Amino acid sequence: MQNKINQIVDFIRSTVSATGLKKVILGISGGLDSAVVAALCQRALGSENVMGVMMPYKNSCPDSLAHAIVLTDELEIAYKIKPITEIVDAYFDIFEKDATPLRRGNFMARVRMTILYDLSAKNQALVVGTSNISEIYTGYCTIYGDAACAFEPIGHLYKTEVFKMAIALGIPNVIINKKPSADLWVGQSDEDDLGITYNRLDYILKLMFEEKKNKTELLSMVISESEYDLIIRKIETSRFKRQMPTMMYENGWKLDEV
Amino acid sequence: MQNKINQIVDFIRSTVSATGLKKVILGISGGLDSAVVAALCQRALGSENVMGVMMPYKNSCPDSLAHAIVLTDELEIAYKIKPITEIVDAYFDIFEKDATPLRRGNFMARVRMTILYDLSAKNQALVVGTSNISEIYTGYCTIYGDAACAFEPIGHLYKTEVFKMAIALGIPNVIINKKPSADLWVGQSDEDDLGITYNRLDYILKLMFEEKKNKTELLSMVISESEYDLIIRKIETSRFKRQMPTMMYENGWKLDEV
Repeated sequence: MQNKINQIVDFIRSTVSATGLKKVILGISGGLDSAVVAALCQRALGSENVMGVMMPYKNSCPDSLAHAIVLTDELEIAYKIKPITEIVDAYFDIFEKDATPLRRGNFMARVRMTILYDLSAKNQALVVGTSNISEIYTGYCTIYGDAACAFEPIGHLYKTEVFKMAIALGIPNVIINKKPSADLWVGQSDEDDLGITYNRLDYILKLMFEEKKNKTELLSMVISESEYDLIIRKIETSRFKRQMPTMMYENGWKLDEV
Repeated sequence: MQNKINQIVDFIRSTVSATGLKKVILGISGGLDSAVVAALCQRALGSENVMGVMMPYKNSCPDSLAHAIVLTDELEIAYKIKPITEIVDAYFDIFEKDATPLRRGNFMARVRMTILYDLSAKNQALVVGTSNISEIYTGYCTIYGDAACAFEPIGHLYKTEVFKMAIALGIPNVIINKKPSADLWVGQSDEDDLGITYNRLDYILKLMFEEKKNKTELLSMVISESEYDLIIRKIETSRFKRQMPTMMYENGWKLDEV
């Protein structure tokens, strides 16, 4: 685990320094992924070069903000609190009163991205992403929302690995011990949304991607057809979230030729 | 030109139908690019399957909205007007009173994306982009703002080609004849922002990308070193806008293997 941590720390240093910037900025939700990324950035760049932003909505769980502050205090990194309630309500109250929780949640994720990019410009700090590969494969993220960033330091780690890394990094227990949630609506739970536990999801994703097992092999193991179908459907319907917009020509813009 | 139009119309039809959706949605600014894309989408999918959204800010030029309405009337496509003033001011008035016009402009572009994606979900309509390749190469766009979409029907056309296509498509003259502007602040002009005219920019970009001329060849033509430097600098500093976030491994997520 220490080796994995060191590799990521090196990756953060080299990625940030390649841009000519010194600082990074990230949204701190009070959850596991952003806590781990914040801790890794602090190790890579020093406390003075990491800024956390908390962006609660009126129905966000109050614990989320409290845990985010515990974390930034522990890491001794600066933070700003920018509540998004007025911004989000200025849209839904005026124009779209009947919007579903899902639409509201995606809107909130994009407003948070918008604020983070504004503060990034103000502070000359690179926006760091906090997506893990379990989310990326299943598309459990908002495109142009939490999926938007300059680089993804834990984008190659499964959620279960992020969990282990959090322990190794000494992330506060209140954050490690709570149930994973995007906290976009009251009572939301990652595993309920996904329809599978992270343990089970990561086990199957690793068989698919690391061990290159095909469908027949997977079904001959203790994986049911419905589990297989659930995961494959998520992978396929979320492909657009992992790609640049479609261009008319396969080669698209041919920039690296110049 | 008719051949180029037909190719794009086919591209729009096949891209939309591959998603299983029937409709598209796009922001109509009152400018040239979104007018051309709206007209192309209307030819490809029929008026009933194209929705325009106008998202004026309090300091947007009133002509922009007026021209957008002229266009949607002409194309007989449905439109919605969603002013963004309250949303944008709810951020800057409360938190960031001293923000520069550039920060405000980028924020507005991202708020417009956020609204467009919300209405896309509501109406089951794909978000169409309106970027041209002159903008894409020079990075003259807001990442996760106007650069965010499902597909780019004119992403392979230079601005000067978009202009010619607008004439062929019968776009209203008020739109064709005005000076290109992102209209993010009063008096903004594309060519002032870029530091070069589109005629000159496209001429040089085509020599670089279509005719593969190198620096020595370009400078031996009627291109000055400062023009060359300006364009190369824009291309290089905007590379991040044309790529997915940097991942720790070159291969990134290996999704297409499954």
